[in-house]
Amino acid sequence: MAQFDTIAIVGVGLIGGSIGQAVVEGGLARRVIGIGRRKAKLAAALRRGAVSETTTSIRQGAGAAQFIVVTTPVDKIVEVVRAVAAVCPADALITDAGSTKARIVADLESTAPAGARFVGSHPLAGSEKTGVDHARADLFRNRVVVVTPTARTCAADTKRLRRFWSSLGAKVIEMSPAEHDRAVAATSHLPRLISAALAAATPEKYLRFASSGWDDATRTAAGDADLWRSIFASNRANVLKALARFEKTLAALRVALERDDDRRLQQLLKDAKTNRDSVGN
Amino acid sequence: MAQFDTIAIVGVGLIGGSIGQAVVEGGLARRVIGIGRRKAKLAAALRRGAVSETTTSIRQGAGAAQFIVVTTPVDKIVEVVRAVAAVCPADALITDAGSTKARIVADLESTAPAGARFVGSHPLAGSEKTGVDHARADLFRNRVVVVTPTARTCAADTKRLRRFWSSLGAKVIEMSPAEHDRAVAATSHLPRLISAALAAATPEKYLRFASSGWDDATRTAAGDADLWRSIFASNRANVLKALARFEKTLAALRVALERDDDRRLQQLLKDAKTNRDSVGN
Repeated sequence: MAQFDTIAIVGVGLIGGSIGQAVVEGGLARRVIGIGRRKAKLAAALRRGAVSETTTSIRQGAGAAQFIVVTTPVDKIVEVVRAVAAVCPADALITDAGSTKARIVADLESTAPAGARFVGSHPLAGSEKTGVDHARADLFRNRVVVVTPTARTCAADTKRLRRFWSSLGAKVIEMSPAEHDRAVAATSHLPRLISAALAAATPEKYLRFASSGWDDATRTAAGDADLWRSIFASNRANVLKALARFEKTLAALRVALERDDDRRLQQLLKDAKTNRDSVGN
Repeated sequence: MAQFDTIAIVGVGLIGGSIGQAVVEGGLARRVIGIGRRKAKLAAALRRGAVSETTTSIRQGAGAAQFIVVTTPVDKIVEVVRAVAAVCPADALITDAGSTKARIVADLESTAPAGARFVGSHPLAGSEKTGVDHARADLFRNRVVVVTPTARTCAADTKRLRRFWSSLGAKVIEMSPAEHDRAVAATSHLPRLISAALAAATPEKYLRFASSGWDDATRTAAGDADLWRSIFASNRANVLKALARFEKTLAALRVALERDDDRRLQQLLKDAKTNRDSVGN
């Protein structure tokens, strides 16, 4: 059952393409317009069935939509949402898929055109692989999507947004932009930073001995460096706080190892296992 | 083509069971004797086809074998190899599958019965899952197995051992016990320690926001705490050196983030990606 007649998606990479594919396959909208700057990428999205039509014009694409999802890199989101808000219908709902929320939401609340209906989203799904070729209609199924309304958001908009992500199979969680950023600093940004440190700290001559443990622990370090640099930069204070917690725990492990303190070492390893086992996967 | 008439495997968990299964399925020996203390585990190995017969007696199992693989936890290997050497035929070859080599090999060279033919092995395969139920005949296929002969090893024994692991599909690499321990400290033990620190440092209230990046980066923290404690303890100096390298790289990332030094941050992330991409998987 279609919630919107027309949905526009700005940016047809892994996330935008997967949203489009889920909407197209689920018949959740009559038209799914892919908006982007590069025609080759738009053509690829069309071929994959991730969108039903494409345009390089935000005016043309967003002007016709009741719901617009902006999936550009975090450092472009504010600018693109403003451009969308300037041309979309007055009651159209706008969201994004950025990995950080506080700065984006605050910037938009102070600078977006009056009456723009923006509510932030962050689907906790993705992969070290990028591009529409890796898009999957089930990317959001059983994954958490955080939506971040504020005191200025109208409740009906939050409800529409929650309903949209739920229709993609996601578990929707509502929280403030600041609390969201603290949480993902610990569970997404810090792991990415640790993964990079581990990969960079491994001497080249030993890489051929990489265990499956090394493979897993460094997997996200294969992700796009530029994209991650901008994510870290936009959540710097929280990432540094999460990093301080990590460094403290690591130092405790180091001291236990230095002192040959088997009991303490085992206790720390057990604490880690308890947290890990509670998550699964 | 059978290289040995009878192979004995002490310890029928993930590694021992997978070796047995590969030998049985490949017809690499006429008899595969599983040796262990717990009858229920031996029965499970037999049911899975990981061994062709079982015994709780080292004398009975090893006494009949031309090749014996000891797959007990690292802190039990020396003791078990000595027991095997005391009862096996004089020309029988003994190896282990321990994650560290220097201490084990040195202990055995100074205390094993004269004439015992022990050459160390470390298959770089495994999983956070343990037990014979997860055993797979292809566990070693295209994985590295390090063998660690010393000046006292006879060349024919090393050759027999290399041939055995090759017949299981492994890529065999020969190096000294000390060099092996330095390598795996960086590529296996350190990742396990980092993974534990990350899992333990994640506040419980944020666990429900675990991204696939967190899942990957902490996967090995689900492994057995006791097993890993003894691995770390047996390779302490090298793990601490690898950890010092990691802490230095992590500090460089932290400083770049603190100073908002985008260029430096991006360079470090790119170095990490280069190492990660060169490994694949």
